[in-house]
Amino acid sequence: MGERVRVQRILAIDAGGTSTRAAVVDASGLCLGYGIAGGGNPVSDGYDQAVTAVADAAEKAVAESRAARHTISPTLVAMAGAGPRMQQTPIAERLVALGLDGDVDIEADLLAMFHSGTHQSSGSVLVAGTGSVAARITAGRLDLVSDGAGWLLGDTGSGYWIGHRVARAVVASLDGRGPGTALTALLLSELHLEETPERMHGRPRAMLDLIDALYKLRPVGLSRFAPLAFKACGQDPVASQIVTDAASALAGTLNAVRDHRLQGPVVIGGSVARAALAAPPAVAAPLRAALGSEEVIQVEDGLIGAAVLGLRRAGIQVDQEVFRRLQQTVGPLREAAGPGTKTQPTT
Amino acid sequence: MGERVRVQRILAIDAGGTSTRAAVVDASGLCLGYGIAGGGNPVSDGYDQAVTAVADAAEKAVAESRAARHTISPTLVAMAGAGPRMQQTPIAERLVALGLDGDVDIEADLLAMFHSGTHQSSGSVLVAGTGSVAARITAGRLDLVSDGAGWLLGDTGSGYWIGHRVARAVVASLDGRGPGTALTALLLSELHLEETPERMHGRPRAMLDLIDALYKLRPVGLSRFAPLAFKACGQDPVASQIVTDAASALAGTLNAVRDHRLQGPVVIGGSVARAALAAPPAVAAPLRAALGSEEVIQVEDGLIGAAVLGLRRAGIQVDQEVFRRLQQTVGPLREAAGPGTKTQPTT
Repeated sequence: MGERVRVQRILAIDAGGTSTRAAVVDASGLCLGYGIAGGGNPVSDGYDQAVTAVADAAEKAVAESRAARHTISPTLVAMAGAGPRMQQTPIAERLVALGLDGDVDIEADLLAMFHSGTHQSSGSVLVAGTGSVAARITAGRLDLVSDGAGWLLGDTGSGYWIGHRVARAVVASLDGRGPGTALTALLLSELHLEETPERMHGRPRAMLDLIDALYKLRPVGLSRFAPLAFKACGQDPVASQIVTDAASALAGTLNAVRDHRLQGPVVIGGSVARAALAAPPAVAAPLRAALGSEEVIQVEDGLIGAAVLGLRRAGIQVDQEVFRRLQQTVGPLREAAGPGTKTQPTT
Repeated sequence: MGERVRVQRILAIDAGGTSTRAAVVDASGLCLGYGIAGGGNPVSDGYDQAVTAVADAAEKAVAESRAARHTISPTLVAMAGAGPRMQQTPIAERLVALGLDGDVDIEADLLAMFHSGTHQSSGSVLVAGTGSVAARITAGRLDLVSDGAGWLLGDTGSGYWIGHRVARAVVASLDGRGPGTALTALLLSELHLEETPERMHGRPRAMLDLIDALYKLRPVGLSRFAPLAFKACGQDPVASQIVTDAASALAGTLNAVRDHRLQGPVVIGGSVARAALAAPPAVAAPLRAALGSEEVIQVEDGLIGAAVLGLRRAGIQVDQEVFRRLQQTVGPLREAAGPGTKTQPTT
């Protein structure tokens, strides 16, 4: 048997919107090296930047592992937009330039997120960061997907969806069409704008300044205002309604893929899903009700899941023992590498 | 007294998103020439294209009038985004190239729309086409404006707002998150897509095709689907809800500027406002309730109003007689020029 068959180490990469994380792990689930680089979501950052982030994170993880590079194979990349139309060659070429064999497999970020929470091969997953999407996983594959239709056409309850509603509510309030809200002061302050009584062209000056500032952002950049809604919810009725509606929408997205006859946990990922679950009980109620009494596992990102998928691809069975070792050994190296895990809803 | 003071003819131009219209009128309100050119909304079409459309429409109207070009002054252009920041020089240069004197004034399209309905100098106006905006007019000036905040941040109840909801409702329906709706067949047919039972990556093939097609449009292009909601409303509950919500939103925009102590008519313009008023009574109810028992005047566009503003700028008083003559003489020349008035909600 050649080297390729006796695989002992694989490289797992989770390319996300805020950062890209990589880990070299061995067949027992032991993490030997960890690396972090910039945003690597090909949909929001562009494919070229994603490839660079993947290569940067890979180099750091491989260097830290001190493993002989030709013994690390395959590489499993978890990425948004994974599918038959996605090019693998540019990534393979960058991995070869790092001394790896270039055997690369790209899987859906959603599948990796699910497997970051469990070694079981069936269950469901809800991820809400900048976007929102849910899936039913059956026998290790995406069986049924709900939402993930992007900022313009879907992503209900996501960070973009919430931030967009925050911006519209403040514009309507300044305009006299909507109720007053604590979000106005929070949003103007976030953008370093003043709320003045001055009026121009029949409108409040602050509204015109706000509109100018917001149209300069990419639409999806409105997701940065989602935390304002979570900050004000519980006190401000407008903010509470936005967060309650988001929790209801996320519950609807999850319910569209749930099958209560099937076994398996519900894995929850993304900063917005976590914030929605941590919101005051009255606000988080719809989402908690959708989760019911089932086992719910919250995960940080898809890196452990990418490792699970990479090990499986190498023919290694990932049982509870291997999975626990992944959890126990990826965490400390991640913490040693410093910040980079998602704390803002920009993933 | 020089030629400039004895002004007998002015040039009025209404630069809209679907077309740009121009008219040469004399001091009695008689329309001597009419011209129509392409879209001239500087916000949606770009400033350069708007200037070209203005010049094209102007040349046609001036040629048809057979008036000595040096006797036509001033030129009044009604345009979205009019304000102190808008450049007048490029338009003046194009007018000089046509043999005019280059004396040009740019006014808000909203003010021209109001004056297309009345020679009175106070009242209110609601315009809903691709966008939506309302204003209170006091002593011939925009006194208070509501909405007009654009597709991302406002324009509630507009053609974009309706078309966006149509698209999101169909995506949600295909995705299993939303109720079934007659809009699905209408939207897929409009985009020449098929509703097949085929599934890919855990999703219906038709949903993936639809998302691909819709993200290829400019966001504001979703306004072209607004007519589907009007077509299906009354029968389809999803479509009826969208149109009812739009009518409520437009009522809110108008109510934010109304002052029932003030005299003056309510002028209504734009294809979407007209369609909302023509919707089944149960659906149009919120808008009809907001209009109450006041005098409501529906207008086609802002051309007659641009002429009113241009004549006033030339020191000519526009009384009921002059206004009636404008209405009676612009119409026939417009009809003789053929289609170009807005029948689709893309203005």
